[in-house]
Amino acid sequence: MTTNTTNRGVVYKGAGKVAVESIAYPELAIGNRKCDHGVILKVVTTNICGSDQHMVRGRTTAEEGLVLGHEITGIVVECGRDVEFIQQGDLVSVPFNIACGRCRSCKEGKTGICLNVNPARPGAAYGYVDMGGWVGGQAEYVMVPYADFNLLKFPDADQAMEKIRDLTLLSDIFPTGFHGCVTAGVGPGSTVYIAGAGPVGLAAAVSAHLLGAACVIVGDMVEDRLVQARSFGCETIDLTQEGDMADKIEAILGEREVDAFVDCVGFEAHACGCNHGKEAPATVLNSAMSLTRAGGQIGIPGLYVTEDPGAVDDAAKQGALSMRFGLGWAKSHSFHTGQCPVMKYHRPLMQAILFNKVKIADAVNVEVISLDQAPNGYAEFDGGAAKKYVIDPHGTVAA
Amino acid sequence: MTTNTTNRGVVYKGAGKVAVESIAYPELAIGNRKCDHGVILKVVTTNICGSDQHMVRGRTTAEEGLVLGHEITGIVVECGRDVEFIQQGDLVSVPFNIACGRCRSCKEGKTGICLNVNPARPGAAYGYVDMGGWVGGQAEYVMVPYADFNLLKFPDADQAMEKIRDLTLLSDIFPTGFHGCVTAGVGPGSTVYIAGAGPVGLAAAVSAHLLGAACVIVGDMVEDRLVQARSFGCETIDLTQEGDMADKIEAILGEREVDAFVDCVGFEAHACGCNHGKEAPATVLNSAMSLTRAGGQIGIPGLYVTEDPGAVDDAAKQGALSMRFGLGWAKSHSFHTGQCPVMKYHRPLMQAILFNKVKIADAVNVEVISLDQAPNGYAEFDGGAAKKYVIDPHGTVAA
Amino acid sequence: MTTNTTNRGVVYKGAGKVAVESIAYPELAIGNRKCDHGVILKVVTTNICGSDQHMVRGRTTAEEGLVLGHEITGIVVECGRDVEFIQQGDLVSVPFNIACGRCRSCKEGKTGICLNVNPARPGAAYGYVDMGGWVGGQAEYVMVPYADFNLLKFPDADQAMEKIRDLTLLSDIFPTGFHGCVTAGVGPGSTVYIAGAGPVGLAAAVSAHLLGAACVIVGDMVEDRLVQARSFGCETIDLTQEGDMADKIEAILGEREVDAFVDCVGFEAHACGCNHGKEAPATVLNSAMSLTRAGGQIGIPGLYVTEDPGAVDDAAKQGALSMRFGLGWAKSHSFHTGQCPVMKYHRPLMQAILFNKVKIADAVNVEVISLDQAPNGYAEFDGGAAKKYVIDPHGTVAA
Amino acid sequence: MTTNTTNRGVVYKGAGKVAVESIAYPELAIGNRKCDHGVILKVVTTNICGSDQHMVRGRTTAEEGLVLGHEITGIVVECGRDVEFIQQGDLVSVPFNIACGRCRSCKEGKTGICLNVNPARPGAAYGYVDMGGWVGGQAEYVMVPYADFNLLKFPDADQAMEKIRDLTLLSDIFPTGFHGCVTAGVGPGSTVYIAGAGPVGLAAAVSAHLLGAACVIVGDMVEDRLVQARSFGCETIDLTQEGDMADKIEAILGEREVDAFVDCVGFEAHACGCNHGKEAPATVLNSAMSLTRAGGQIGIPGLYVTEDPGAVDDAAKQGALSMRFGLGWAKSHSFHTGQCPVMKYHRPLMQAILFNKVKIADAVNVEVISLDQAPNGYAEFDGGAAKKYVIDPHGTVAA
Repeated sequence: MTTNTTNRGVVYKGAGKVAVESIAYPELAIGNRKCDHGVILKVVTTNICGSDQHMVRGRTTAEEGLVLGHEITGIVVECGRDVEFIQQGDLVSVPFNIACGRCRSCKEGKTGICLNVNPARPGAAYGYVDMGGWVGGQAEYVMVPYADFNLLKFPDADQAMEKIRDLTLLSDIFPTGFHGCVTAGVGPGSTVYIAGAGPVGLAAAVSAHLLGAACVIVGDMVEDRLVQARSFGCETIDLTQEGDMADKIEAILGEREVDAFVDCVGFEAHACGCNHGKEAPATVLNSAMSLTRAGGQIGIPGLYVTEDPGAVDDAAKQGALSMRFGLGWAKSHSFHTGQCPVMKYHRPLMQAILFNKVKIADAVNVEVISLDQAPNGYAEFDGGAAKKYVIDPHGTVAA
Repeated sequence: MTTNTTNRGVVYKGAGKVAVESIAYPELAIGNRKCDHGVILKVVTTNICGSDQHMVRGRTTAEEGLVLGHEITGIVVECGRDVEFIQQGDLVSVPFNIACGRCRSCKEGKTGICLNVNPARPGAAYGYVDMGGWVGGQAEYVMVPYADFNLLKFPDADQAMEKIRDLTLLSDIFPTGFHGCVTAGVGPGSTVYIAGAGPVGLAAAVSAHLLGAACVIVGDMVEDRLVQARSFGCETIDLTQEGDMADKIEAILGEREVDAFVDCVGFEAHACGCNHGKEAPATVLNSAMSLTRAGGQIGIPGLYVTEDPGAVDDAAKQGALSMRFGLGWAKSHSFHTGQCPVMKYHRPLMQAILFNKVKIADAVNVEVISLDQAPNGYAEFDGGAAKKYVIDPHGTVAA
Repeated sequence: MTTNTTNRGVVYKGAGKVAVESIAYPELAIGNRKCDHGVILKVVTTNICGSDQHMVRGRTTAEEGLVLGHEITGIVVECGRDVEFIQQGDLVSVPFNIACGRCRSCKEGKTGICLNVNPARPGAAYGYVDMGGWVGGQAEYVMVPYADFNLLKFPDADQAMEKIRDLTLLSDIFPTGFHGCVTAGVGPGSTVYIAGAGPVGLAAAVSAHLLGAACVIVGDMVEDRLVQARSFGCETIDLTQEGDMADKIEAILGEREVDAFVDCVGFEAHACGCNHGKEAPATVLNSAMSLTRAGGQIGIPGLYVTEDPGAVDDAAKQGALSMRFGLGWAKSHSFHTGQCPVMKYHRPLMQAILFNKVKIADAVNVEVISLDQAPNGYAEFDGGAAKKYVIDPHGTVAA
Repeated sequence: MTTNTTNRGVVYKGAGKVAVESIAYPELAIGNRKCDHGVILKVVTTNICGSDQHMVRGRTTAEEGLVLGHEITGIVVECGRDVEFIQQGDLVSVPFNIACGRCRSCKEGKTGICLNVNPARPGAAYGYVDMGGWVGGQAEYVMVPYADFNLLKFPDADQAMEKIRDLTLLSDIFPTGFHGCVTAGVGPGSTVYIAGAGPVGLAAAVSAHLLGAACVIVGDMVEDRLVQARSFGCETIDLTQEGDMADKIEAILGEREVDAFVDCVGFEAHACGCNHGKEAPATVLNSAMSLTRAGGQIGIPGLYVTEDPGAVDDAAKQGALSMRFGLGWAKSHSFHTGQCPVMKYHRPLMQAILFNKVKIADAVNVEVISLDQAPNGYAEFDGGAAKKYVIDPHGTVAA
């Protein structure tokens, strides 16, 4: 048992603002609900995620005071009485989706839509609007419920600390990008297009390579991000340039369509080519139907929302998009959506990291910052920096 | 070799009109392309399909003179010189999708998007606009290319003739409905909603039962069709009635959502409840997202088109639909589109018929008519008759 | 909380003997290991299983005093403090495999090989030798650990009691037979051979029908069991009769091989035809390779053991069988073994029962007996009675 | 059309002997069966396979005069009249399994057990005893039937010739090793044991890496082969050394079992450790059950035969092996056997080669030899050389 009772975390302060503040030290409870199945973690690393930006930009109904952060790695400092297989001192990765391990969804491996952790709808996360009210982990300490079920323990803590820049990505973006590729049907020999070269897009590109793809093409409008993609063997397309996308793909592949398409952009998509910069929420999905071969699959890890108060038009405000669905139908496409069920993938991806099969941190350009640097990290990331910001609240990560 | 050189067939004569006329006796060729791999069939049965109605209603760019019909069962009367395993006298079912058996798609089992049979796009069919120019089979005789690959031979012709009313449905609607269920993830114990109780919807409902579904709910606006659905154990919802769909589902299941949803309506969908009758092309897809449980799959055998000159608005004319995609994303839905690859299913479904496992003809209410009655059959079907019209051009089917 | 502290159960008393005796009232613990995640059930029904017979016949190292019974349905009378979603008064089905819900196997859905419930090896069960030491449930009361994870709650207890003769089979044999069929690749239109018409074999035959099989052939040496199989539409082969098996299959199917083969016999197999009666542990597996078509799958729910002290020869004593593996290789067979992970199937199979899709109790010929009749039930079952004995310890099941 | 009518090939001359002799120039026929669907290839490369050695060692009933060779890459010099999509001048890879593309097996993608190419049993190959009588391709020219279906055309012949040392392995060993891994369930993050470091074993190891395996362990008794395995990142175990296998695996992985096991040895297996050298046909299969974790899969591309006249005991002569099947059952293993259906994999693996994703030729240590050097190649390979011999009959491969 720890006797520490102080805590600090990154707090949403209204559109465009975050601040590091004192917050409550976590309890083994959420409101009146006891969490004897939970543990308290001393946070070792916690990453800033693109989906945090949706809130910080004021694109959601998030209220001021919300403690941010759903990408968490930490050391167990206290175990609830129902915790049996996780022990104090374990170094663990926390899946961003909170799951009970006892409902129909969890038993089917669909931990992204657990039925018991969010009264409003299936699925929950730490520090996120409408996701169950669980306190975020961009903090010194955080509580993780259903710890035996949720946590992935690293087999050797010392070895893990040496690879912590990579392992910290197991809580969200590596599995999320991987899930996008799996649902797009990427496998050995595939040709793949990844829409978006932010951290999730780059993680998807790494995943496509790990899955054996023959050629991975990444498209984005930020040159620095495309540089990252090329650094580990991807082909790239600069979407600020004019020209027909199919021509550009043919120049790379010798064919005008790809086998698999992964949308790592989501609803805040912008038009490309001469209109780049204008928000166009269905543009990536419509491109997917154009550029994916008949019989191909479209993986959609990028977030689409049920309501978007800041959308460009009324339809989009209600989450309605103008999709050229008939084109997809004519090509027998399938479309795969939703939050990644991290638990399905984090153990094998951990193994890939521990046995030096992938270098995910380099690929997404991890930059470790202190907790106090978090607001700055948010600002730089929002500005398009081709980096993945990893907060190190206790200064435990070696330089 | 047959010496017969006369032939008659059902011909599209412009919006709202079909006629039975003399047409050319088939050759083992299409234009200049030789089809020594083809056979000529004496047609035993050939069914009128809902998708034929799209053309006959003038909803497509089909030209006058097109010979209709893609649901064909027949006896082989002549074999091209390169046919090796099919013989004269064989009684065979013809998949509506024409496939070469030699391209990448065919080798992957995706015969609905064969790359070698339609210069315009992947996928072809008999007697259908934009589907490769192959002559339709609502006729006395028809040519089937790549016969060794395409045809399903019934093991015993006499036994098959006794079940011909069932077996005739193997060319399209039984596999199509089945494919809808398979892609929706229907399995033992599933709860399923089938949108539409036309022949494909009823075939999907039969398929859901065959796949072991616990409860199959069928929704339509035509009472006679719902009567059909109830005749083989389905629950039904009359869409002309007011009321919340989730309430109606709860009254049947005790739960407000189904495990699996099959859209057997497609782009000519109409609003239900108080607005029933108004065309609303995305209404079924949006209902699917509302009524399917998180983690569920949505099978879409109903046709969505790339262009619809007769659509209610400009967006729909270009095949663009207003989809509440964010809702589907929040529930981790997947969407499965496209023509059914009949060959994937026709053999096992034939077995299910031959061993008396299913009674598909009764379920869809087959009515056998002569070739000369075909125009009348088209008219009655367009009027909403709860029947599946099967043309018997040679009077071979026992009364 | 219940204050009852008496309990009675079926106890193994040495080779060939069982007796009903007073046993300890269950605690929320196993030895020193606390089970605050457990519940205590008042047993409503608990079935005698063929695998219990292996112990009772003295074919295992089971020690006298072992309380038997792993097929359990009951009402929750006490919940451990960490149980969150199961409540007192719930009527529940207990999977025979005990699983923690927190290890790698459980997270992968492989609850039959849970890593945390048996120090000796992966996988545990109630009342079974070498399966973790958990007390059996052929008793008035029993403790179930990890209750939130393991238990399947029936949605409506009154409705469930009306179908309790069917629902009681969800704890083992229905899922076990179903798993055999699933791993054998049974699906719509399949032809299937089920080796053995004991309760598991009959449950597999029901499952094959539920999965849409076109023709299900059941082989056994006991005519009464074959009568059961025919009662729900199976074809049967009497293995005491002379003649070539392939000939017999051809007489039924018109083909000499089946698509799928399910071995519901296991290591205590006996030769058929003129040698019937002689134990021949590999005979079913070798038949499977002969009678299954090239490319087919062989599901093996029947138990094969690592050691068999009572075996006919030294090799079999060490679990080594003489398999014609080269024949299977030439036909590209795959072989699927192991305990059924009941949790993967019990919910959908419950739905199939509750919506009247299957009549499993009639198929296996359930006979409800009192606890005191249990020893007699064991004896009759061992004598080959074509019945499934269901013990009703509290007289709760309506006649 | 070519006018060449001379041909030379590698001919089996009785146990232990092969010779290069004049053989007939191929016709578009096999016996009386016309093959207008076939093409004649000028052989560019044709590899010596371990399974050829079974014949050459006299372990089969192969008759003298048989022309060897089933691993073939070539240029089309003549097309039968039914060939539509393959053209003269195409550079193509030939799957070793001959398949018609028109039977039930082929339509299901199971080209290794085609029903129409071998009167004796499902499945055929070039130049192999009991595999249909098709003439082998270790020759200057060879006939390939059903060319549109069987052949994989390289998209750019010049580019392909630059990678011909890699591409020549698409006809058998690369897909075969890959199939072993796929059926063993290898995926991202897996730990894998490959039994045998001959060319198929090394190809399996490359495949495991391509599939994303975290750690690939290869076991063999020949140090040179283990050197090859280490050259591309595998861990190795020298089977001539004493010691417990589980200990050796634990030293590498930190765990005593692997996730997936691939048997690339087959029926000519030898005992390891102190008994190495003694033939022990079930030893690899029994090791597989010991060393694979509960719930794991065992892929068995290594050949097991129905009859083995040269076996060590009577049981093995009839293809019967003494398997500890009960151990596999206790661990819920599945076993996957049979010839690799090359067509399922050759296109994606070609892509992986053409886009520089794998270096398979280096991994298996390809050595290009002339046709006249073939007998020497056989001898060296039989002696355990850690090489893959590729015959270049026309001297077309650049040095």
